[in-house]
Amino acid sequence: MKRQFEVIAFDADDTLWVNEPYFRETERAFSHLLSPFMEPELVRRILFRTEVKNLPLYGYGIKAFVLSMMETALEIGGDKLPPQTIRKIVALGREQLNKDVVLLDGVGNVLQSLHQKGQKMVVVTKGDLLDQESKLARSGLFPFFHHVEVVSEKHELNYIQLLKTLDVQPENFLMVGNSVKSDILPVLNIGGYAVYVPFHETWEYEQTDIKIENPRFQEFKEISEIISWLEL
Amino acid sequence: MKRQFEVIAFDADDTLWVNEPYFRETERAFSHLLSPFMEPELVRRILFRTEVKNLPLYGYGIKAFVLSMMETALEIGGDKLPPQTIRKIVALGREQLNKDVVLLDGVGNVLQSLHQKGQKMVVVTKGDLLDQESKLARSGLFPFFHHVEVVSEKHELNYIQLLKTLDVQPENFLMVGNSVKSDILPVLNIGGYAVYVPFHETWEYEQTDIKIENPRFQEFKEISEIISWLEL
Repeated sequence: MKRQFEVIAFDADDTLWVNEPYFRETERAFSHLLSPFMEPELVRRILFRTEVKNLPLYGYGIKAFVLSMMETALEIGGDKLPPQTIRKIVALGREQLNKDVVLLDGVGNVLQSLHQKGQKMVVVTKGDLLDQESKLARSGLFPFFHHVEVVSEKHELNYIQLLKTLDVQPENFLMVGNSVKSDILPVLNIGGYAVYVPFHETWEYEQTDIKIENPRFQEFKEISEIISWLEL
Repeated sequence: MKRQFEVIAFDADDTLWVNEPYFRETERAFSHLLSPFMEPELVRRILFRTEVKNLPLYGYGIKAFVLSMMETALEIGGDKLPPQTIRKIVALGREQLNKDVVLLDGVGNVLQSLHQKGQKMVVVTKGDLLDQESKLARSGLFPFFHHVEVVSEKHELNYIQLLKTLDVQPENFLMVGNSVKSDILPVLNIGGYAVYVPFHETWEYEQTDIKIENPRFQEFKEISEIISWLEL
């Protein structure tokens, strides 16, 4: 028996390419900037709290992250915050937007192999629309995908809407991603299939402790294992 | 003869609801903030230059606008920029994101009337994904639309991609909007129909002086005129 899906969807950040380590790197530089005012670990806690508080207003992505760093810096530095710190925060954001797109192991081969077999594939990602489009263009992976969907959230309703747009039934839909909360659970809940490929770093907000037992769920260490799994 | 289109697409900002006046209002408040350093009109010129320079990196929308205000303030105020100014810029951005959604005259009636006739309608808009989704939800117009497409640009290629996603031919597609540059010309260029409903304020970047003569083009003072035009 061979597993077949009408559409295979891939998360982008930390599934196709490196992302979270860049956020952590920026966060470390930011904590260091504010070290004259506060311990780095405390800075990090306040930044995280600010980011989560701002999610409903700013959404995901680097621009939202930069604005949350600004607000955190103003909260911590108060009227003693030097303009130079703000200038460096702006620069950190610009640097991160211009980071190289580094593909994860096996991604190029998996996509090429599936594409050659005529598999319809889409990208489903949160974050800044322009930034994600730009990363996809720079990654060289664009030609493999039929459709790119940047969503403001990855809740069940967003997947239901996507499946409607793609005109595909849940049982013919497979999602591949590194976030249990965003890529796996909502897809399983609406009747789709999900492959979980953990990445070594996950943003605290996306972390869960849930143990999944579901016949439509599969976990792999490497994305390349998906190829033989589909052949079984 | 009756004009029929498989899909009618609407621009959102300043076509369905008020937008540009809010940007101008924020801009005035921003120029006032920096008036200890520079003439408001000069501040406005530097802000505009910064926004346009940042478009390829930040894209459209309020978060991009806030970041451009930050950069402009740092450029103008230098090391004398008070943290209080940065704090106020953040507040201006948050205020603008929370502005009421005010529908333009006739919009509710036009959409309801077309919806009742079974017309398939979509929204095509630039800007922040989350902000546009939030405005659509708050506007009460969401139920009238089959699909919402937030795009990073409104070039010919974006429309070609959209028509592919919607599976519609250009001659069966009508775009309604207030920007000649973004809503009208690219759609006419790919063979679609376009209705231009000017708004009294247009961002400098979107302004053009082009005179359009095209059998697939129509200009109206009020969006409600579209109803009788479709009936002819």
